[in-house]
Formats: sequence, C-alpha cells, structure tokens
Amino acid sequence: MDNKLWTKEEFKTQLMNLQYRYHIHHPFQKAMNEGKLNQSQIKGWVANRFYYQITIPKKDAAILANCDDRLFRQQWIQRIIDHDGTNKEDGGIQAWLRLATACGLSRDETLSLKHVLPGVKFAVDAYYQFAKQAPWQEAAGSCLTELFAPQIHQDRLKSWPIHYPWIDQEGLTYFKSRIKQANQDVEHALAFTLDYCDTKEKQLRAINILHFKLDILWSILDTISIYHGFALQPKVKIAPRFKFQWEETQKSFVLLYPEGMIQLNESSSEILKLCDGSKSQDDIISILEKKFDNAEIKQDIIEFLEQAHAKGWITQQ
Amino acid sequence: MDNKLWTKEEFKTQLMNLQYRYHIHHPFQKAMNEGKLNQSQIKGWVANRFYYQITIPKKDAAILANCDDRLFRQQWIQRIIDHDGTNKEDGGIQAWLRLATACGLSRDETLSLKHVLPGVKFAVDAYYQFAKQAPWQEAAGSCLTELFAPQIHQDRLKSWPIHYPWIDQEGLTYFKSRIKQANQDVEHALAFTLDYCDTKEKQLRAINILHFKLDILWSILDTISIYHGFALQPKVKIAPRFKFQWEETQKSFVLLYPEGMIQLNESSSEILKLCDGSKSQDDIISILEKKFDNAEIKQDIIEFLEQAHAKGWITQQ
Repeated sequence: MDNKLWTKEEFKTQLMNLQYRYHIHHPFQKAMNEGKLNQSQIKGWVANRFYYQITIPKKDAAILANCDDRLFRQQWIQRIIDHDGTNKEDGGIQAWLRLATACGLSRDETLSLKHVLPGVKFAVDAYYQFAKQAPWQEAAGSCLTELFAPQIHQDRLKSWPIHYPWIDQEGLTYFKSRIKQANQDVEHALAFTLDYCDTKEKQLRAINILHFKLDILWSILDTISIYHGFALQPKVKIAPRFKFQWEETQKSFVLLYPEGMIQLNESSSEILKLCDGSKSQDDIISILEKKFDNAEIKQDIIEFLEQAHAKGWITQQ
Repeated sequence: MDNKLWTKEEFKTQLMNLQYRYHIHHPFQKAMNEGKLNQSQIKGWVANRFYYQITIPKKDAAILANCDDRLFRQQWIQRIIDHDGTNKEDGGIQAWLRLATACGLSRDETLSLKHVLPGVKFAVDAYYQFAKQAPWQEAAGSCLTELFAPQIHQDRLKSWPIHYPWIDQEGLTYFKSRIKQANQDVEHALAFTLDYCDTKEKQLRAINILHFKLDILWSILDTISIYHGFALQPKVKIAPRFKFQWEETQKSFVLLYPEGMIQLNESSSEILKLCDGSKSQDDIISILEKKFDNAEIKQDIIEFLEQAHAKGWITQQ
C-alpha cells in the first residue's frame, strides 16, 4: 500500500470514484426512473424510505452530540432544521409525508412505519449507530453520498411526471428542495473531510466510510426489491484475483492469476468475455443465443458459469 | 387489546407460535436441506453466517455486562465458553471454521470476512446493538429462537451427507454439538423469560423481541439469496384488511372489507383462491395454465395481480 498522502484533489477524485456504487445505479432505482415500477412498488419505496428520512435528523444530532467544535456545530445544525422544519416552515420529513400522500399512502399509515421492512430497518439503524459511535469527524464524512445526490433528485423531478402522472406534482417538492440543500451540505462536509484527513490512513478510512454508507443505501433498495416483487438478477464478473485477457503467444484467451494461468477454449472465452459486471446469467444466455443462433447452448452456459463460480473464476456483483 | 396476563403455559404457546417465521421455513434454507444449492451457494452461506457466529459471544458478553444478577451470569457465561472454547476444547467458532474448510473455504478467507455481505452485517450488528442497549432481561429473551433450533441442526445432519457428499463429514460437528447445547441454553432462557414477564406488557414485549430476532435470521438469508443467484419469488396473499370468501346469497366469491364488499367474477376468484401466502406469481400462473390447459392466460393473470396489488387486495409475504 502506497503511504503517500493524496493531495486534496487526488483524494476528492478517489471519493468521487465511488460513484459507481451509488444507488442511482441500482436496478430498482433505474427501473423507477424508467417508469417501470407499478404503484405498489413506488408506495413500497416511499414508505420504506420514510424510515431513512426520520432517522437523518437523529443521526445528525448524534454527530453534534459528539462534536467539540462550536463552528462545525453552528453549520451542521442546519441539517437537523432542514429535516425537522420550524414552526414557520415545513422540513424534509413533512415534505416526504406529502410525497407519501401523493402516492396514495395515508399519513397515519406512513407514520406507523408498518410497511418498513426489517432489512431496511437494520441498514438504516446501522447508519445511525455508526454516527453515534464513530468519532464525529468520521461520521460527518459518511454524509458524502450527497456528492452524488443532486443528480438522483433531478432525474426524479424529470422522469416522475412523465411516467407516474397519477402522483400529484405537489408531492415532488421534497426532491426540489433537496437539490439546493444537498449542494450546500456537501460543500461543507467535503471541505471538512478534505481538511480533516491529513494522513493517508485517515484518507483511506474516509473512503471505507463512504463505501459503508453507499452499502446502506444499496442494501435498502435490495430489500425493497425482494419484498415488492422486483426481480434482482445478480451480475457476474471475473473474480478480483483473476485477469481475463488475450494471450498472443498462445493464440487464445487466458485467465491469469498470481500462481499461474489457465488457457481457455473458445466457448469458455465467449462466456467469460461477457462477465464484465454489467450482465446477469440470463443476459449472457440471451446474448449468446442470439450470437450463435442456437437455443440449445443455454444448459452449457449455465453449467459453465456454475463451474466457473465453484472454481472462483467469477463472482457476483 | 386484552390486558389479562397469560399463564406461563399460554405465554409459552404464544412464543412457540412464532415458529412459522423461523428461518427453517426460508426458501434458501429449504433448498439447502433439499440438496438444491450448488457449492458456491453453500460456501456463501457458510462464509456469511460466520459473521453471525463470531458475534454471538460478544452479544452474550454484552448481556453479562448489563446484568446485576450473579446467578444468572453464572449460567449465561457458559454460552460464551461454548462459542469461544477453552485452551482444552475447541468452541463453536472453531467448529464453524472447520465446517468452512470442509466446504472449500480457506481458514484465512473465512476469517478475513471478505465474503460477508453488507446486508448480513447490518442484520447481525442490529442484534449485537440490541443486546448492548436493551435491558439484559429482554436481551436474554431474544435468544429464544433456540426454541426452534434443534430441528434445523438435525435436518442438516441428516440431509447434508446425502446431498452434499463433497463436504467432509468432520465439518458437521458444529451442528452436532449445537443440538445438545441449544437444548440446555433454551431451557434456562425460557424459564427465565416466563418468570421475568410478570405483566402482559412484558409478555407482549417478549413476543416483539422474539419477532425481531426471527427477522434478523430471515433477513440474513434474504441477503445471501440475492447475492448468490438464488431467486426469491415473493409469495402472494390476501391483504390483512380483506377477507376472501364464498357468499351464498350472491352465489359468488367476494372480498369483504370493513367498509363494504367486492363481488368477484369467476376468473378473479380462481386467481385469488391461490393467493394463500404459499404461492408466488409464477406458481399461480403455472397452476392455472395447467388447470385450464391454456397457455394464453398468463398475461391476464399478471395484469389482474398487478391491479389487485394496486388496489391493496393482495400483498406479498
């Protein structure tokens, strides 16, 4: 491991590189913006995500509760106010309740949390517990998923009115208000994290923490997907310890690994070429069935992938 | 809500009634015992479940750490010893590592936790956090899933050698030793909980806590299922506020709900009859295709179920 401190610019790039794992890329989220969810799936998402919304201000209060830096607290407190609102202005939680109503969930139903799935609770609670127990500077860094958030809200504002005309537009104000807020919030959190991480160790820790937070958001959508009839097919990719490449001397594709090399025949190569992390088993089958105009290769592909899995050549996303 | 305290016998029955939610009934667990998992799925389960195994003694230590009752501690400490072992005898964690090796996972690989999925971590951590934060008497009650455990271990001992002959029998000692231990443990925990819950409120709380713990075990298998290519089709059932029944006066099936009644035509009735919580959409389609010898009704069924879902008549397990 290279112990040289990243410059702030490099460090920011490293953080931004985790974008690939943001839940904007989750199949459920993608389907949502493509108009492919039914009303019950949208309602399921809104009702479950409400548990995340109501946890945010408690999470931020936990950070304040551990923080000795008055100036930091002075800024961070705005997050709690943004979500809880004031006696003059509604906050994010009220706005989310309006979204829920617009989707056909009653206010009481949403507040009762009766639709919140255990797996969603576990993931959100993990975030809250982390904020309570981690050094406040690290907990602050976990909010950096906001780096990627403005896009997701903009996408929703653009696609929902087209795909889900049955949702009252009034309901979408949450997304609108979060674009501005998230931009302000992330500016503060990012500047703070870039400053705070003055050793390579702290920088790497911040990367891990951002990954942890991304896992939470991803896991929430995994759980909603299973319980709302949204099929999740795992994507397949070459396992990290293997490298799949063309070997000129052998005139064939090979799998390189630290201790050696596996030479591959043509059909294995055709399958492994498609194990790029963006395709599921079914995707691979349908691509190769078309390519070779042969519906009988399905079983061979399934067996090969099972073998490849057992040998550790490939893994699931 | 009836406020009358349950007798110990009644209370025990109420606890036992939660058995339906024990992960022995989870599709992944069922497939495991029916020999339907491939090696990579078994390995995935063993590697992920290891995180649960190593958390158990910390969870039990957290209960001791909050407990003022010397005699209780005197008994409960055996759980930590059973899992951690002594310098003379291996404990449950070592036995699980041998199981992992027997399944083809290296010791280092298992210990590194690199296969542990975020969703599994969140669920197990929720259990650990609960044990740290709840009154120790309540945390002790969360262990009552052991009421249902001996069967699951017996099933594994019986079915694995038949279905998974590639797993060295030596690896199965964990299951063997847990049958005896779980029986002893649960006797203590059950007697304690039956005594401790001397108000209806405490009894109901104990039911909720057992449900929470069952959710954790269930959620672990949900997560493993998605990431190890095990398809989970949600089961469909009539929503709680509706009652599906034959109405003699109308000579038809109806859906009763608090405010009224919906009269159903024949095809809707045929579909709703099958929404009994044990069948998925695909199950229903294949049953009706056979019954009516008509492969063209698939689209109608899908549309009806989508509508029924949107109207809240049916819900997913």
